[in-house]
Amino acid sequence: VGPEALSLWKSKSTFTSFGVFLLQMGWGDLGAFGEPSKETPNLDQMASEGMLFLDFYTASPLCSPSRAALLTGRLPVRNGFYTTNAHARNAYTPQDIVGGIPDSELLLPELLKKAGYVSKIIGKWHLGHRPQFHPLKHGFDEWFGSPNCHFGPFDNRALPNIPVYRDWEMIGRYYEDFKIDRKTGEANLTQIYLQEALDFISKQQASQQPFFLYWAIDATHAPVYASKHFLGTSQRGLYGDAVREIDDSIGKILKHLQKLGISENTFVFFTSDNGAALISAPQQGGSNGRFLCGKQTTFEGGMREPAIAWWPGHIPAGEVSHQLGNVMDLFTTSLSLAGLQPPSDRQIDGIDLLPAVLQGKLIDRPIFYYRGDEMMAVRVGLYKAHYWTWSNSWEEYSKGIDFCPGQNVSGVTTHTQEEHTTLPLLFHLGRDPGEKYPLSFVSDEYQKVLGQISTVVQQHKATMVPGEPQLNVCDKAVMNWSPPGCEKLGKCLTPPKSDPKKCFWPH
Amino acid sequence: VGPEALSLWKSKSTFTSFGVFLLQMGWGDLGAFGEPSKETPNLDQMASEGMLFLDFYTASPLCSPSRAALLTGRLPVRNGFYTTNAHARNAYTPQDIVGGIPDSELLLPELLKKAGYVSKIIGKWHLGHRPQFHPLKHGFDEWFGSPNCHFGPFDNRALPNIPVYRDWEMIGRYYEDFKIDRKTGEANLTQIYLQEALDFISKQQASQQPFFLYWAIDATHAPVYASKHFLGTSQRGLYGDAVREIDDSIGKILKHLQKLGISENTFVFFTSDNGAALISAPQQGGSNGRFLCGKQTTFEGGMREPAIAWWPGHIPAGEVSHQLGNVMDLFTTSLSLAGLQPPSDRQIDGIDLLPAVLQGKLIDRPIFYYRGDEMMAVRVGLYKAHYWTWSNSWEEYSKGIDFCPGQNVSGVTTHTQEEHTTLPLLFHLGRDPGEKYPLSFVSDEYQKVLGQISTVVQQHKATMVPGEPQLNVCDKAVMNWSPPGCEKLGKCLTPPKSDPKKCFWPH
Repeated sequence: VGPEALSLWKSKSTFTSFGVFLLQMGWGDLGAFGEPSKETPNLDQMASEGMLFLDFYTASPLCSPSRAALLTGRLPVRNGFYTTNAHARNAYTPQDIVGGIPDSELLLPELLKKAGYVSKIIGKWHLGHRPQFHPLKHGFDEWFGSPNCHFGPFDNRALPNIPVYRDWEMIGRYYEDFKIDRKTGEANLTQIYLQEALDFISKQQASQQPFFLYWAIDATHAPVYASKHFLGTSQRGLYGDAVREIDDSIGKILKHLQKLGISENTFVFFTSDNGAALISAPQQGGSNGRFLCGKQTTFEGGMREPAIAWWPGHIPAGEVSHQLGNVMDLFTTSLSLAGLQPPSDRQIDGIDLLPAVLQGKLIDRPIFYYRGDEMMAVRVGLYKAHYWTWSNSWEEYSKGIDFCPGQNVSGVTTHTQEEHTTLPLLFHLGRDPGEKYPLSFVSDEYQKVLGQISTVVQQHKATMVPGEPQLNVCDKAVMNWSPPGCEKLGKCLTPPKSDPKKCFWPH
Repeated sequence: VGPEALSLWKSKSTFTSFGVFLLQMGWGDLGAFGEPSKETPNLDQMASEGMLFLDFYTASPLCSPSRAALLTGRLPVRNGFYTTNAHARNAYTPQDIVGGIPDSELLLPELLKKAGYVSKIIGKWHLGHRPQFHPLKHGFDEWFGSPNCHFGPFDNRALPNIPVYRDWEMIGRYYEDFKIDRKTGEANLTQIYLQEALDFISKQQASQQPFFLYWAIDATHAPVYASKHFLGTSQRGLYGDAVREIDDSIGKILKHLQKLGISENTFVFFTSDNGAALISAPQQGGSNGRFLCGKQTTFEGGMREPAIAWWPGHIPAGEVSHQLGNVMDLFTTSLSLAGLQPPSDRQIDGIDLLPAVLQGKLIDRPIFYYRGDEMMAVRVGLYKAHYWTWSNSWEEYSKGIDFCPGQNVSGVTTHTQEEHTTLPLLFHLGRDPGEKYPLSFVSDEYQKVLGQISTVVQQHKATMVPGEPQLNVCDKAVMNWSPPGCEKLGKCLTPPKSDPKKCFWPH
């Protein structure tokens, strides 16, 4: 959900630390990517000092699966972050989800341990909230943040408010102990997350231990919030205020690295877990620039992400890369930076981006656009083929839920699941980044390109072994009623009787 | 038609020369404005060395009226570049137009003469092609280019091909002597226009005379062209090739100024005469970024333009301005730079932008969006009110003519002329630059803002004195049959008998 920034840092000596900023922001939310108000001076400067990726993707059009893909280097359909309850449905980890990240998956921080890294996650985990899914059971050494999103509930009576953890234990709950004023949008959370990051980096620098910091904050996820100092400072309303605060925080983190003298030992990456949520626009939703639709869809607006790599002294300043990248690549690239090999006993989808980052090379690789259990589309070079199209159902759409507001493209933004597996809709993303002009089926260009893409797709499908789906079963009994630490706070609630059911995923 | 760049240069001494690059390009065509392929390194560098205007407008959603407004500092409805043949119709200067720029209008180069400036227009004039409208009769000292657009005809039998002039005389015609290969898109014209600019600047620098260069090239107007060296170099197809060549040319002109040591005496401005023509997309049309619709409309995509001011040593590098600007301001600003006053005997709509450019001030002023004889919309601060909405007629639309492809916004991109003069549609362009979410009529925000805007509109309408419309009458007899100089070339054609009629303006 929303933009995400991932950074990978490593301190002095032969080590390289990694920082990943992962948040919910759209491609078009940054000045460097053309936001008409240009209110992200720090991110723009990060880009001007590093490498801007223009063709960078997430692995899923929504939050949990993208985050699982980032940390495992694998497509959600492999690591289990998908559903088979219905065809091509987006699924994530709401409070009543029973599943989460399987123990069989190897997460980046687990692997980095072998190279002596200390890993911290700040912000939203979103890979499952039951005890076995706790981030400290999956390789992270420290955690400050929440297992689920802050979008509700808000009362802690009928349903538990989302807990905020420090490491193993809950230290409070959203809306109760960590205030978010839903009227004014005021909340101090980004400032707290910023301080956590600065402190962690200072500690690691002092102890000369390499680190992996995963700063996965969520101020730009509805209900959007910003702290008092930033409220009302944007031309873009509350969403813009939140973006300004995040931008400011990232600037402070980068300056902190420089001040401590470890910026040249720290590889930092900024990106997002899905496109801007246009259902929340314009008050609480960001921008996907000129791309089609937003979060929840496999159009470019749902999955193409802002992305910046920063590593002073290593990445030449002001570079622009057309490398097709994916959040899963951060897994493989981080391992490479740490001198580690990716696991050889499983399919890894992420590639090592270092040749692109350090030498400006272009590595040929496809981008797959999945929605739940279905490969909806694939990008090869500048061409994208849609094998299935769907924005959302007529039933949802008629209730005003619109993932493509003001962007109806006839035959493309369909409200029924349309199969195009025989003759996929083909777009040239250079001439037509907005996916508005499908190539004619009878053109030479279509025939030639389809042949190339078909080979890629056949190979992909032939070797695909889906993981066990984790997002099929929901049960109110598994919600955050009594997280560890609740006793100390007097915040334990009594769960209802277990009643597992198939989760309902409407889109 | 298309993007335009205006630059104002002045050589040594107390003088400041002006250069204006004026072409047909959309807001979203520049890397600095977020084009996903980032293929304009020279314009991006121009922006990083100067000031990027994010809220800059043209005076009309199409070519001729915008150009007339730029050179007169006045809205087309005042200087006569509009029609009254039907309500709210776009009109320009096709070959059979009888009208043109009236002698009563004072053009920028005419006024600059008083301060010793030498003015040259390179490229498309478009303010009328009959003898009395010749640019050298309206203040320019030199001309290399064409009176009309190069979009046809292509045969020089039934109808004359467009002449190319050097100063007073035609030296050839498009497609005959100045080739444009309509199959491959190859044409060497931008290179010729570039050389003309470099030569003119060298001459002026050598003679130490201040100059005004108006570089109004048209490679990005359909049929789009590029020279051999640039063909196939873009990720965006032929349109992108043309953009790359223009970008390269502008880089060369700026470097030439620097090499000659006159860059600090030369104020250069880049902008466009209308938004990208989406009817020509994606093969021959550009991008308006995230703005709604394109050329021919009064939505942001039709009238918000890319704009860069460059003046090394005067404009601090890397500035971003939210000043509401308009091409008409280049008139007033240029006069100010030359130490001249704008005419006091008529209403001038352009304002002096120097306080914004040099001191970063924000001058409060509205932007009026006209279509022909009708004020369709107005922008005050971050708010825009539509008093009339129209994309084009159902009749045109049903034939496939679409100014808003893939951007249907219900009730906004209407196919009948919809009047909203009692309750205008109101948008907040900061939260909603795409004009997709009209404010609720019953909101406090609407009520408050409408009051402020109404005052501005009442004042504007109360003092408006329209000029005599120049674009009402068409006659095949006035076409470029026998331009001066045709005898020498053996290219005189015989005009048909005069048969003046009301021009038909379908949108």
